[in-house]
Amino acid sequence: MPELRKDPIIGRWVIISTDRGKRPSEFVTKPPAAKGGFCPFCEGNEEKTPPEIAAYRVNGGKTNTPGWHIRVVANKYPALKVEGNLDRTGDGVYDKMNGVGAHEVIIETPRHEDMLATLTPKQFEEVLWAYRDRILDLKKDARLRYILIFKNHGEAAGASLEHSHSQLIALPIIPKRVSEELDGSLEYYNYKERCIFCDIVRQEIMQGVRVVSENQDFIAVTPYAPKSPFETWVLPKFHESHFENSQKHHYENLAQIFSDVLKRLNVILDNPPYNFILHSSPIKDSATLAHYHWHFEIMPKLTKTAGFEWGSGFYINPTPPEEAAAYLRGAKIT
Amino acid sequence: MPELRKDPIIGRWVIISTDRGKRPSEFVTKPPAAKGGFCPFCEGNEEKTPPEIAAYRVNGGKTNTPGWHIRVVANKYPALKVEGNLDRTGDGVYDKMNGVGAHEVIIETPRHEDMLATLTPKQFEEVLWAYRDRILDLKKDARLRYILIFKNHGEAAGASLEHSHSQLIALPIIPKRVSEELDGSLEYYNYKERCIFCDIVRQEIMQGVRVVSENQDFIAVTPYAPKSPFETWVLPKFHESHFENSQKHHYENLAQIFSDVLKRLNVILDNPPYNFILHSSPIKDSATLAHYHWHFEIMPKLTKTAGFEWGSGFYINPTPPEEAAAYLRGAKIT
Repeated sequence: MPELRKDPIIGRWVIISTDRGKRPSEFVTKPPAAKGGFCPFCEGNEEKTPPEIAAYRVNGGKTNTPGWHIRVVANKYPALKVEGNLDRTGDGVYDKMNGVGAHEVIIETPRHEDMLATLTPKQFEEVLWAYRDRILDLKKDARLRYILIFKNHGEAAGASLEHSHSQLIALPIIPKRVSEELDGSLEYYNYKERCIFCDIVRQEIMQGVRVVSENQDFIAVTPYAPKSPFETWVLPKFHESHFENSQKHHYENLAQIFSDVLKRLNVILDNPPYNFILHSSPIKDSATLAHYHWHFEIMPKLTKTAGFEWGSGFYINPTPPEEAAAYLRGAKIT
Repeated sequence: MPELRKDPIIGRWVIISTDRGKRPSEFVTKPPAAKGGFCPFCEGNEEKTPPEIAAYRVNGGKTNTPGWHIRVVANKYPALKVEGNLDRTGDGVYDKMNGVGAHEVIIETPRHEDMLATLTPKQFEEVLWAYRDRILDLKKDARLRYILIFKNHGEAAGASLEHSHSQLIALPIIPKRVSEELDGSLEYYNYKERCIFCDIVRQEIMQGVRVVSENQDFIAVTPYAPKSPFETWVLPKFHESHFENSQKHHYENLAQIFSDVLKRLNVILDNPPYNFILHSSPIKDSATLAHYHWHFEIMPKLTKTAGFEWGSGFYINPTPPEEAAAYLRGAKIT
């Protein structure tokens, strides 16, 4: 059983994979990325993945067979296990609990050659619906507190399989960065009685210099204090704290702007490796929070210098977000 | 002038290099690392670096000439500038100030072929004295609040020059991770009236399972909840909040254990890229704080998966620290 352990000083939880501890030699010998070989995520290879948790099929059809356009399966090497109790225990100054949770893979397309950036708007929207459906289903599990949805694109960004997919990790704790956002935005709300994200959206629209793209419901901006070059956030222009509470036309417009931003990044940075993360509210409260505002954060992985920055929480960004936004606005996309 | 900008939601400051903004093509075309070529840090090439800020020479000798064994120079491409006022200003919801500060390079040896791990104990100790001397000097500048000392070893850890060196960044703000440690340890102190780091040291000595190395004054442990595999902390066994307040024999013993740990990492992980960071108290208070405890954190750079972890503050570590410590304890070092 994996363990969740808490750093006693700063309160950050980490997953420790106690049952498949990686030995030093596994880090030293880097296996080459399997390219052009067998892909378990391709249509027709359904039996090579763990069983289907959910799938979208046009004309119905049997589970774990071809004919799907989105497919959700359990991660073959899960960081957390679905079975068991949390069993919170202490060990002197330390705290731990069982690594209970879910670790799923959202296969975004049956076709190996597709990239998320090049999916049709309709197919992109389906990916977003799959996120929502999985969140709604996992919300029923009282042991869980947060659902982390993210994508690693490209080997340098941590993707171990080339076939386009996102990941979902359902956690019995709230990730530190999310807690910080919840606390920070609540503090602002208590002081101003306004949502800080709504204020940011208003200011960005007014100033325009960091806007990458915009539509009826969403705005994509390079944030004022980005930790890495070309970091881009996609924010709803309407106030909502939970991704899963949005309406149908919101997902349509989100697919449009998200696709647009990924295309711009591809053109300007030559198909860069990237990560994106959905920042949404903890799942316990379903009602909209006045102070928090869901959004996506997209981080191209362009520099290697994360080392000391990662350990200090202090970042040096060589590209001002105003310049990055200007490049991205100017991208010729089709 | 570089800018320091504050994330309005979580309060993290970042440096934005406004005057030498990196264009997209500079990220796309990765220049190969210069190896075997000219090295400005080698003895004899003193005129190729910015002028000497400090140097240790056995028999005196002129500045900016050979004969030194430790040399401190300004970073040729500084992230911050020494001149100017902070000029704190707001821009709607955002806050910024001038990027005032110092960015220095501590050249740890005149010889290109040396690595920090293979320096003599005496030379290693001199590196630590150089850290201390620079801290004491920079403390006099009332604009500064924190001195961040770190090392990037190996290209994958962000080192742009091969010749063994550390870096120092003196900041008008306190890095977020340090604030978190100060806040977290103060909270513990207020509750228990004990230093949490002292409690950790006591528990680690008692349990033994995460101990890598130990001497009279220091202990090296893999932390209970490490964010990356083989992460190792070196902690004083005595209570002290400021690195620069320690006594002579402490630096001797620190050099001994630090060298020992780096040698063990080299043997077990085959000269891995790594970062280390000195965690010490803000420089404004010189008196020892009861709740904080300086230490070094060493992070080998073994995995590529920092992407989503970096953005969520949630880490998955495939090697339990107890196993990592056992490997490191068992390393055959000379």
